[in-house]
Amino acid sequence: MMADFPSRIVIHEEGPREGFQIAERPIATHDKVRLIEALATTGVKQIDCVSYVDPRRVPGMADADVVARSIQRREGVRYTGLWLNTKGLLRALTLPLDLVGAIRVSASETFSIKNTRRNLAETLAEQREMLRLYKEHSIGLEWGYVMTAFGCNYEGEVPVPQVIRMIEHIYALAESEGMALKGIYLADTVGHATPLTIARAVGEVRNRWPDIKLGVHLHDTRGTGMANAYEALRFGVENFDSSCGGLGGCPFAAHAGAAGNVCTEDLVYLCHSMGIETGVDLHAMIQCARMAEEILGRELPGKVYKALV
Amino acid sequence: MMADFPSRIVIHEEGPREGFQIAERPIATHDKVRLIEALATTGVKQIDCVSYVDPRRVPGMADADVVARSIQRREGVRYTGLWLNTKGLLRALTLPLDLVGAIRVSASETFSIKNTRRNLAETLAEQREMLRLYKEHSIGLEWGYVMTAFGCNYEGEVPVPQVIRMIEHIYALAESEGMALKGIYLADTVGHATPLTIARAVGEVRNRWPDIKLGVHLHDTRGTGMANAYEALRFGVENFDSSCGGLGGCPFAAHAGAAGNVCTEDLVYLCHSMGIETGVDLHAMIQCARMAEEILGRELPGKVYKALV
Repeated sequence: MMADFPSRIVIHEEGPREGFQIAERPIATHDKVRLIEALATTGVKQIDCVSYVDPRRVPGMADADVVARSIQRREGVRYTGLWLNTKGLLRALTLPLDLVGAIRVSASETFSIKNTRRNLAETLAEQREMLRLYKEHSIGLEWGYVMTAFGCNYEGEVPVPQVIRMIEHIYALAESEGMALKGIYLADTVGHATPLTIARAVGEVRNRWPDIKLGVHLHDTRGTGMANAYEALRFGVENFDSSCGGLGGCPFAAHAGAAGNVCTEDLVYLCHSMGIETGVDLHAMIQCARMAEEILGRELPGKVYKALV
Repeated sequence: MMADFPSRIVIHEEGPREGFQIAERPIATHDKVRLIEALATTGVKQIDCVSYVDPRRVPGMADADVVARSIQRREGVRYTGLWLNTKGLLRALTLPLDLVGAIRVSASETFSIKNTRRNLAETLAEQREMLRLYKEHSIGLEWGYVMTAFGCNYEGEVPVPQVIRMIEHIYALAESEGMALKGIYLADTVGHATPLTIARAVGEVRNRWPDIKLGVHLHDTRGTGMANAYEALRFGVENFDSSCGGLGGCPFAAHAGAAGNVCTEDLVYLCHSMGIETGVDLHAMIQCARMAEEILGRELPGKVYKALV
């Protein structure tokens, strides 16, 4: 097919949540807040700041509530947090961050069981409960996320019909609760995607639902991250999750396969080189990556922030 | 245009030369030899081992002659070295590595002057002298290289007509000396390429010379390396230089813009994921990247060698 590049994309900045949840040493709360506030000056309109998870499982998020309460907010920027279950959502409700409703299912049931201890039926039941809480608390529903849409470490490649089925489940769930979705994000949760699997899955979703908005959440686990982003752009995908500096990988868990999101400033550089607008100031984002490097005390995977640009 | 993926590519492994010439600390000669010998077991058929340069300018290559003499050769593998002038070639003639003739010109004259202290006319004169030495010593001519074909730090983007002119110079030179070329390599010497500039330059070269073999030498300075490789594959490019582990970047010169070649095993992973043959055993190449990491004592930019595959 001919390339169908978008004229502009929308970036959700995932760096703080992705980076701090796996940090190999404690990061001072004020450093987390400092990075989030700097990111808010770059032009990104949504920053994922924390996750509402059990601090015994994710010690880096033990100060999530304090971080959430400390951010000096900037007009026009949404500061979000991630919840994976109703318990997390109930915690989010007590905090001053923006609440953005989502439906999250995993295309790989094995991954779902390992990650959230729920099979598909249990996940759908919990997501339904979540939708009811959204309505009860006037939280708008936005995106449906299909996690491990391009494969997982347990099941290997995930067949495209399984991704399609998950999207059907997401739409059926939203419809049965009388709620509208903004669109669908396909998430390469563990970095299994290649340009070929991007083309297959995105192509088939586009065939099936020609008009829905699409997003991708990509991890650069196997070096194909930017080629995957490029292929998604070629298919007209307009929404991207990415991480300042490529935050998210853990150097000490490297051989367990953890790697960061595609790098925000590298993605911005790529898009601008093709005349695709991002609304992000590249140089401001580079400054954030340098700040993140200084805070984490190690070189980050991003490239542009280390280069002359 | 429709993608024109090749069914197989040929990789020239650049890791030893790229990696050792910029190493931030001395690497033991036997470690260099050990890595070269391991690379020769992966299926790559050409390994660039050393450069014949002034050791005062490039201390990491001070033991190039010893390295060249120490390699236990494996049948069917070519072990090459890089010379940038006739002095380097005369030195190569005294050593047991394979001699592969090339014509090298830079599309950016400013880069040429900074890198080799020669303008275009002087470069062409020296390349002619080199061709005469090739004939005198029965060295086969293979590729013409256009360096900085996609831009340089001094001149910024390099206009495509300038690349075309350089290729005309290369062909005219070869023809006037009665020598045939295997094809043309476009080199992104300092990592300026983007998928768009790859498409423009490769597309125009293909229009002009539909039947010549093309290669690309890519550096991942700004995070677009693999997207650039992918775009080159889409245009049917069949020859790639790459570096085991992404060797070639210098962590201490990072802000001066130095970065390694695209990573061999990541490129192999990408190609195999699309059914493009490389002749390279991915797992053997991953072992080499791990060896290179151990030898250099630092994490390398490559991704696949750190992931579960």
